[in-house]
Amino acid sequence: MLPLPRSITVQPGSFVINDPATFLSTLSGEIDKTLPPEGYRVTVTPTGVSVVGGSPAGAFYGVQTVKQLLPTVVYRAAWQDDGPWEVPCIEITDSPAFAWRGCMLDVARHFMPKHDVLRFIDLLAMHKLNVLHLHLTDDQGWRLQIRRYPRLTSVGAWRRESMVGSRQHERFNGRPHGGFYTQDDIREIVAYAAQRFVTVVPEIDLPGHTQAALAAYPQWGLEETEVSTRWGISRGVLNTLPETVAAIKDIFGEVLELFPAKHIGIGGDECGDREAQSRYALELYSFLTAHGRIPLGWDEVLEVPDLPPMTIAAWRGPGVTEAIASAGYEVVACPDTSVYLDYRQSDDPREPIPVGTVLTLSDVWHFEVPDHERVLGAQVNLWTEHADSPRTVDYLAFPRLSAFAEAVWSPQPSTYDMFVHRLTTHLKRLDAAGVEYRPLDGPLPWQERPDAAGWPRDRAEREAELRKQTQFVRRLGAPDGDH
Amino acid sequence: MLPLPRSITVQPGSFVINDPATFLSTLSGEIDKTLPPEGYRVTVTPTGVSVVGGSPAGAFYGVQTVKQLLPTVVYRAAWQDDGPWEVPCIEITDSPAFAWRGCMLDVARHFMPKHDVLRFIDLLAMHKLNVLHLHLTDDQGWRLQIRRYPRLTSVGAWRRESMVGSRQHERFNGRPHGGFYTQDDIREIVAYAAQRFVTVVPEIDLPGHTQAALAAYPQWGLEETEVSTRWGISRGVLNTLPETVAAIKDIFGEVLELFPAKHIGIGGDECGDREAQSRYALELYSFLTAHGRIPLGWDEVLEVPDLPPMTIAAWRGPGVTEAIASAGYEVVACPDTSVYLDYRQSDDPREPIPVGTVLTLSDVWHFEVPDHERVLGAQVNLWTEHADSPRTVDYLAFPRLSAFAEAVWSPQPSTYDMFVHRLTTHLKRLDAAGVEYRPLDGPLPWQERPDAAGWPRDRAEREAELRKQTQFVRRLGAPDGDH
Repeated sequence: MLPLPRSITVQPGSFVINDPATFLSTLSGEIDKTLPPEGYRVTVTPTGVSVVGGSPAGAFYGVQTVKQLLPTVVYRAAWQDDGPWEVPCIEITDSPAFAWRGCMLDVARHFMPKHDVLRFIDLLAMHKLNVLHLHLTDDQGWRLQIRRYPRLTSVGAWRRESMVGSRQHERFNGRPHGGFYTQDDIREIVAYAAQRFVTVVPEIDLPGHTQAALAAYPQWGLEETEVSTRWGISRGVLNTLPETVAAIKDIFGEVLELFPAKHIGIGGDECGDREAQSRYALELYSFLTAHGRIPLGWDEVLEVPDLPPMTIAAWRGPGVTEAIASAGYEVVACPDTSVYLDYRQSDDPREPIPVGTVLTLSDVWHFEVPDHERVLGAQVNLWTEHADSPRTVDYLAFPRLSAFAEAVWSPQPSTYDMFVHRLTTHLKRLDAAGVEYRPLDGPLPWQERPDAAGWPRDRAEREAELRKQTQFVRRLGAPDGDH
Repeated sequence: MLPLPRSITVQPGSFVINDPATFLSTLSGEIDKTLPPEGYRVTVTPTGVSVVGGSPAGAFYGVQTVKQLLPTVVYRAAWQDDGPWEVPCIEITDSPAFAWRGCMLDVARHFMPKHDVLRFIDLLAMHKLNVLHLHLTDDQGWRLQIRRYPRLTSVGAWRRESMVGSRQHERFNGRPHGGFYTQDDIREIVAYAAQRFVTVVPEIDLPGHTQAALAAYPQWGLEETEVSTRWGISRGVLNTLPETVAAIKDIFGEVLELFPAKHIGIGGDECGDREAQSRYALELYSFLTAHGRIPLGWDEVLEVPDLPPMTIAAWRGPGVTEAIASAGYEVVACPDTSVYLDYRQSDDPREPIPVGTVLTLSDVWHFEVPDHERVLGAQVNLWTEHADSPRTVDYLAFPRLSAFAEAVWSPQPSTYDMFVHRLTTHLKRLDAAGVEYRPLDGPLPWQERPDAAGWPRDRAEREAELRKQTQFVRRLGAPDGDH
């Protein structure tokens, strides 16, 4: 089973399912509030299968576990199998190690159509993950309809062309790219996710990473621009004119209508303009907390002097999560060198568009979420500069996302060999679900990208760079830190 | 409503749906065998909604019609709307004009992942179409797992790179492309389609259009080759050695296990080798009819002397369908100049990769399926040389497929203006379903393809070319034809 449950006791005997279709269509769970809210107990005896959850979410996870006891055909949209199916008698007691078990999906660099997002949510839920952090805006595209500012999508939702491969090579494809979610689409995505106990955390990244918005409304910036066709950080930044601040609050007002999540992403990263960075972090802190929400910012936002207590997504390498938690902030751990799924999966020369450090399946599985009361949990981040279709997202995400699901759910230690053994069965589930994952021995021939060069990084060099960048964070977290 | 039902009588009053979710989850039909098998009657009175079908398919179509009376949110995967919804009192009696209401989808030139095929089936069913003709093999790729010949997919399912734009320009992208359906995937697709009353008609195109197979098993051909990276017809053709004929029958044996459809596509088109064309048409005629199936060939197969009575897909221009029916063959009408959805939708310079003749929404809507006892119906053909993702398939297919659905279903004349009026509402249904259709006033900026040149054809010139090519077909159908 994957992620590995807390306790499994196999007993003699089995339950025989004579009518699989009816069994599955009626499979559901009872609630027992003495269990942890997301916990569950699955009991298979010769007379039946019982699922009890600490809440509807727990019952849902119990059902997911039962599905893993059945033939993999249950992961298909339609099938004909008259059974009988035999399920071993078993008692499973389970609950997650962390409350925030997420995936950030970048739909700004490459748009993912709505129905593909729904499918991605299915895959998260199948892995007992419960947060989809949607990176909705960036220099290369604005993907969310805002009623009051229609140019954000009529102008900002598409770019003339895109880079092919990593930015050092300066190659472009001449092909427009675009797309956006209507507010109705968002309501559908949010409702669909909620049915699967996945919270959609939206992110409007600012005041940097806003070139698409600035192309639409140049008066919010410093100069005329177009939606970026390049990867990497652009110079565009929001100005701090009162009208601009007011417009941004209007935008967040519409975001709050659409997304009931407690956390709302505000970005705050990779911005050279300290004044704008501070201004927007503080304005949005006030605005969001006044509406009962909590801002979520990338760890650069800690550069803001006297930053109030928002939640921090700690991405810049190992050690930063603990430092931020020690400094008093709630943290979601997502260190790039452990959970950035756009990073190359091996140093195999066939690896498509290799960027970042090597981040193998084993590396992700071995990721340890720091255990601290202010660490809410962890998420993988899936940036999509180099994933121009859902097929490539599948390749980057799986099976590393399966390994992450175990790292963030399973409190019990397993061994990597045992994980790989269980993964072999799990890959058949992914096959049934139609996931075009990376095979364990390397890409399929048609998953290679000889046409697009990457920019592989060395891990030691990258860690040194990160240590330098995050010195101030470590100081915040030190016992005599300046916070 | 779209396609327009045979009879609609609006009556005073309305039915109020107080609990939309429950209403929809319990919406189904009774069977009344006095109705036409695919026909139905929908009756809305102040006390309820009744659906009666001549068969389960008819009841299913009745339910599709009821959905068109409801808010478009019913086309979304999840929604929150507590109602009440009001449905006008109405009586609708309906049945299709033709039994074969199909779409050929080319998954060979560009592979479409399984889950996207399932979604495409949903869209066909929503339009009351009932045949998905899957073009599974061609020079540029073999997409079907065959247990006995694994190299068909390990070698034949991918190509090194693809042409960008139409073939005259000789531009290539350097990027591998591939993918295939496992036999389990096919069972899922077939079962999923059957639940929606869509029959999946497989096509293994041969003896031409086989370069991908010949790359995998060169002994079946005349020379070593690779999976084609070019559009257009390749020289590759199956030889007629006994071992090759036997291998092809093995392949069709596995095809018959997977696809319960009465018709099985054998291609027979665009092949310069008359001997191979005849040999395979006759061998497969014997093989398939011995198994109770009917071969379906493209109209070129009529070049085979004394061709036995197989079903013909008549694609080469207007007039050919009638000639073939007169010659005694059952026919599916699919004239390129009326229903080839890869043809350009307008002569707007923004039209992406314009190929073929102009084929507007109006042209497709005005297509008249010839009324002849041996004309089974019609299908659109969606070739995908220039549709390298499901997003582009959406663009090419919609809303022209909606117009075709009306041409092949609705026996009652409407006017084009009235159709466009109804289409305006229907586009909102497509929006809800997440279909990236071509807007009526031209492509969205990100649907344009300035990077890829097309090859627009003139209609008069194309029709002259077709008349010349199909002279022999017309002679077959003439009263003193040589058949």
